[in-house]
Amino acid sequence: MRFLHVGDLHIGKKLHGYDLLLDQKKNLADIIQLAKTEEVDAVVLAGDLYDRSVPPVEAIEIFNQFIQELNIENQFPVFAISGNHDSGVRLEAGAPWYQQTDFYLHTRLEQAFTPIEFQGTQFFLLPYFEPISARLYFQDDEIRTITQAMERVVPEMEKQFKPELQQVLVAHFFVAGSEKSDSETKIEVGGLDSVPSYLLESFDYVALGHLHNKNALQHQKIRYSGSPLKFSLSELEQKKGGWLVELPDLHLEFKELRPLHNLQQIEASFEELLSPIFYQSVEREDYLDILLTDRGIIPNMMNQLRQVYPRILGVSRLNGRESAELQTDFKAVRRLAPEKLVDNFFQEVTGETMTADQTELVADVLSTQEVTDA
Amino acid sequence: MRFLHVGDLHIGKKLHGYDLLLDQKKNLADIIQLAKTEEVDAVVLAGDLYDRSVPPVEAIEIFNQFIQELNIENQFPVFAISGNHDSGVRLEAGAPWYQQTDFYLHTRLEQAFTPIEFQGTQFFLLPYFEPISARLYFQDDEIRTITQAMERVVPEMEKQFKPELQQVLVAHFFVAGSEKSDSETKIEVGGLDSVPSYLLESFDYVALGHLHNKNALQHQKIRYSGSPLKFSLSELEQKKGGWLVELPDLHLEFKELRPLHNLQQIEASFEELLSPIFYQSVEREDYLDILLTDRGIIPNMMNQLRQVYPRILGVSRLNGRESAELQTDFKAVRRLAPEKLVDNFFQEVTGETMTADQTELVADVLSTQEVTDA
Repeated sequence: MRFLHVGDLHIGKKLHGYDLLLDQKKNLADIIQLAKTEEVDAVVLAGDLYDRSVPPVEAIEIFNQFIQELNIENQFPVFAISGNHDSGVRLEAGAPWYQQTDFYLHTRLEQAFTPIEFQGTQFFLLPYFEPISARLYFQDDEIRTITQAMERVVPEMEKQFKPELQQVLVAHFFVAGSEKSDSETKIEVGGLDSVPSYLLESFDYVALGHLHNKNALQHQKIRYSGSPLKFSLSELEQKKGGWLVELPDLHLEFKELRPLHNLQQIEASFEELLSPIFYQSVEREDYLDILLTDRGIIPNMMNQLRQVYPRILGVSRLNGRESAELQTDFKAVRRLAPEKLVDNFFQEVTGETMTADQTELVADVLSTQEVTDA
Repeated sequence: MRFLHVGDLHIGKKLHGYDLLLDQKKNLADIIQLAKTEEVDAVVLAGDLYDRSVPPVEAIEIFNQFIQELNIENQFPVFAISGNHDSGVRLEAGAPWYQQTDFYLHTRLEQAFTPIEFQGTQFFLLPYFEPISARLYFQDDEIRTITQAMERVVPEMEKQFKPELQQVLVAHFFVAGSEKSDSETKIEVGGLDSVPSYLLESFDYVALGHLHNKNALQHQKIRYSGSPLKFSLSELEQKKGGWLVELPDLHLEFKELRPLHNLQQIEASFEELLSPIFYQSVEREDYLDILLTDRGIIPNMMNQLRQVYPRILGVSRLNGRESAELQTDFKAVRRLAPEKLVDNFFQEVTGETMTADQTELVADVLSTQEVTDA
């Protein structure tokens, strides 16, 4: 039996203000293509299907299309859970109907104790949950952390284990010893709520969601799929995709997915950035973090750069900014008109010149300002 | 063939600030019970399932439970459309799966042209739509109103008519000649967007949603179900429930549903309202619009009334309010302390005395107020 383990789709997410919908649409189509090419028996979605509990309608349309194509048109069984970014209640509306086509979507803790038997394997689908849910389920007021909860959850699952079958856990939480990126929302407080990996040893494979780096946890059979796209600059160097998992003899292979636009960092001078020889050699359409080697003021910098690079995430000065201006003759500065002072300051800080509107606004403010030190 | 026609559930609606969730839960359970008692072959939901495009999770939970019980547990086929209060995209997430158990939920105009054949009847499910959708569907820029759209929609549907079958249209709009209540949102502008009933004559029955009064339109075979609960004071006298529709020989019977708490108006003096003989004779738990016969000031009126009547929608003075105070000696008024003046004014307007907190707040404001006419 072979399945594809992906997670943290975060459909509807924005990257530094850029809408990722087209990137995500292509990415999801690639996941389906991968499942088809590899002829997997099932697809696991390890939580955070959406980026927000109330996703925008465009995100819902993209997910609807993805899951219909995956489960109805291509008839892949799907094992899915809700993550901390999802609203369990909003997601679960159609869940009782989904099961008819082997699309299992668990959104409540209690559902985790009914494994789904599939091709010699028991899938335990444990959605993201808060300690309060475990407190209520086990009627045990002592449960205050996810770890304490998991100390009860796992034995409860083990009661259902059939020795002749394999056991796979799909879950969405932080496992102790994992490394984090910037784009995950913290769910643990004071380090208490990370689940120690020894609690999960009785499973043949643990398909995790929550952390966006596939290498966040180094464990032979407990893995994060990572997100299928880069969602922050800290994920710059990460390979994105999903795990191809084979059972009963565990075999793992990471399958990389190519994004519509990659996320990359480029280091260059302003002059280089605008020269065709340079920009024809880089992927101008990528999401770019620019490390500028210049130190001097560059008027209208962002506008000029954006004409060549449409998806700039940020520009930072690799060598700091020239401080020559600070050495200027203070007497000369004192003689400058207030409008000119503001203009200089604006350029100093933003690296751009003010627009006509901004200049007018400044003039307005300066002319209506009351003289308070008279 | 016999089906139950209901609509305008508006799950999640509030009535003058009161949460109706428990009322709606009971109401929906009664709809299922009615379908069972009458052994109907199907249930029609004529739009406005939710009250808002992004319903609160509690509303989603109630609808999920209702539709699962109706369609999965009790196996009633369901023919449903989205109304102007619903978000089509949010509703349709599970729709392709729902069809497997004969739950048809149409949320897009183009779906209306694929009728569902069921027990000798073609059901055309036409969701609420804007003229722009028809403009795009028919690629006709002339379509500016729902009426113009319907002049194209109906002939398009008629192409699908099978003469040996009956045709039922489920739709959600305003049909010319209908009377409206206060709780419907207007969808027409300048009276242009009401659909003339002659356009709908080719159907054997038209199951409408949108207006909350089952008698809003007097037409033998074109009917509003009305809302299953009273949602505004203008619906005070309306009977609420759904139509039992029999075909092929059209037979209609209205089935009334009893609410958890009725909405009613009571007329009495303050003294009567608080006397056990009176209040034991009325349904104190109902949503009440109180018409007060008194004219004088009644200190702490609302608090006293609410102790007996927990669901007061409003209190109005049937005979106006005593204006004796206005005859008062103005010199005496001038001599009153500012705190006392505010207190009198508050009682005059609200019929209640200020709470300790409010009195303190007034004292605070009065003491920190700057003297501006010095």
